[in-house]
Amino acid sequence: MTFRSFEIKRYKDGIVERALDSIAAEEPLAIRVLHWRKDSQHAENLAVTMRTPGADRELATGLLLTEGVIQSSADVVEVRALGLEPSNEVLVELARHVDFDEWRQRRNGFVSSSCGVCGKASVEQISPLIPKMTMPEWRVNAGFIEALPAILDTHQPTFHQTGGVHAAALVSLDGKLVSLFEDIGRHNALDKVIGYATLADLLPLDRHVVIMSSRGSFELIQKAAMAEVQLLASVGGPSSLAVDTARRLGITLIGFVRDRRFNVYCGDWRLNL
Amino acid sequence: MTFRSFEIKRYKDGIVERALDSIAAEEPLAIRVLHWRKDSQHAENLAVTMRTPGADRELATGLLLTEGVIQSSADVVEVRALGLEPSNEVLVELARHVDFDEWRQRRNGFVSSSCGVCGKASVEQISPLIPKMTMPEWRVNAGFIEALPAILDTHQPTFHQTGGVHAAALVSLDGKLVSLFEDIGRHNALDKVIGYATLADLLPLDRHVVIMSSRGSFELIQKAAMAEVQLLASVGGPSSLAVDTARRLGITLIGFVRDRRFNVYCGDWRLNL
Repeated sequence: MTFRSFEIKRYKDGIVERALDSIAAEEPLAIRVLHWRKDSQHAENLAVTMRTPGADRELATGLLLTEGVIQSSADVVEVRALGLEPSNEVLVELARHVDFDEWRQRRNGFVSSSCGVCGKASVEQISPLIPKMTMPEWRVNAGFIEALPAILDTHQPTFHQTGGVHAAALVSLDGKLVSLFEDIGRHNALDKVIGYATLADLLPLDRHVVIMSSRGSFELIQKAAMAEVQLLASVGGPSSLAVDTARRLGITLIGFVRDRRFNVYCGDWRLNL
Repeated sequence: MTFRSFEIKRYKDGIVERALDSIAAEEPLAIRVLHWRKDSQHAENLAVTMRTPGADRELATGLLLTEGVIQSSADVVEVRALGLEPSNEVLVELARHVDFDEWRQRRNGFVSSSCGVCGKASVEQISPLIPKMTMPEWRVNAGFIEALPAILDTHQPTFHQTGGVHAAALVSLDGKLVSLFEDIGRHNALDKVIGYATLADLLPLDRHVVIMSSRGSFELIQKAAMAEVQLLASVGGPSSLAVDTARRLGITLIGFVRDRRFNVYCGDWRLNL
């Protein structure tokens, strides 16, 4: 499935309604390689990449091509899903002439490019690091959420110059901007905000909210949680894994905040609606 | 600098003009860590991340916090730029009580999350893998480029359902759609297209163009080059490193293709303008 349905709350012009929302699916795909070394075949885990399920054979093949492991279909014997459908594992069997060991030596330390969980063998691996939430008692109003995009908008010089960067802003519970950073990568923008807060001894951020100009991806939820941010709002929409992760961690996740509307994906107990 | 000026060609309503365009800066930042092991300090390269320069101390600190290396400012002695300004290296000196070796063991294989070049020690490391371009003789008209967003638009079921995914499409020189894939990650969408072409024995893609719904990042140029794609167009804008890389590789890079307008960042010899 390329999307999943979630029950959400939709806010518009002072009215809140329950709705079923279609959210782009995001799940980890483990890419394994079966390759030859002398006279025997070896299976190896190449990468875990976060992707929208579907066309996994094409994704695995394309990643191997763009990372320089293979040059053409002649280098591939077979690409197949492993385990039960729907599968989150794909195995690429390389032709005998492909020297995978040589490639790996050349690309020493390779982990999937820009996967959002790279270096981690699984999504679960990061979770133990996430601090326990203290869940302080506070709520914000709809007007507070509605005002967040304007805070971004008035403090994005590079965006106005180039139209090509993301922004993350840390906002206090009285609606004041604490810090805002821009970056070509949304994860960097959030890391800059959290790094600023760390150096300024503002941690934990359990009495602040974060507004992002981008979509709300899984990795942003994870980063927010590490700094104990309890409400993450974004101008774009979230992925399915972002919603799942926010629900599991008890983070309030709000998306599509624009034009005095927004969607609440979870954690509405921090909102007066 | 958070942006750089590039000389481009701007096309609108049949008219082409030279213009100076501000493009979001994207450069690699090497994050190094100075940590204690028994009674001595050791320097180590933690990650290379693609970022917009500025707030590098905050970025490095935030990355260490969100990846679980540090918990507060008490874990950091100093964060400083290395080398001459503008610097693309930052050193984080950890406090003596921080057990970096233990962290690394726990996060076995960590490379910066979603950095676009992760696993590579430097941007240059990928370049030798990129095949030499054959530079066939063909040109497309402005009308061909103008029509590309409509091709995307009529074949994005998941986007229309969720508003939250990217698409990449492979288009032949007569303007026909060859294949289109959607994904929450733009790099995945392109890998799926290239994987499809690999399995269908369409490589090299030197007589096709790729249109992306997203911005044109460095990593997309790199992936396109691996499949010998010679013209990459995107609905969003490119980063400075994307333009630099496309120029170096001889790829035609076109951005902000929408409403019968577009910008040509390099390689205009493949266009009849």
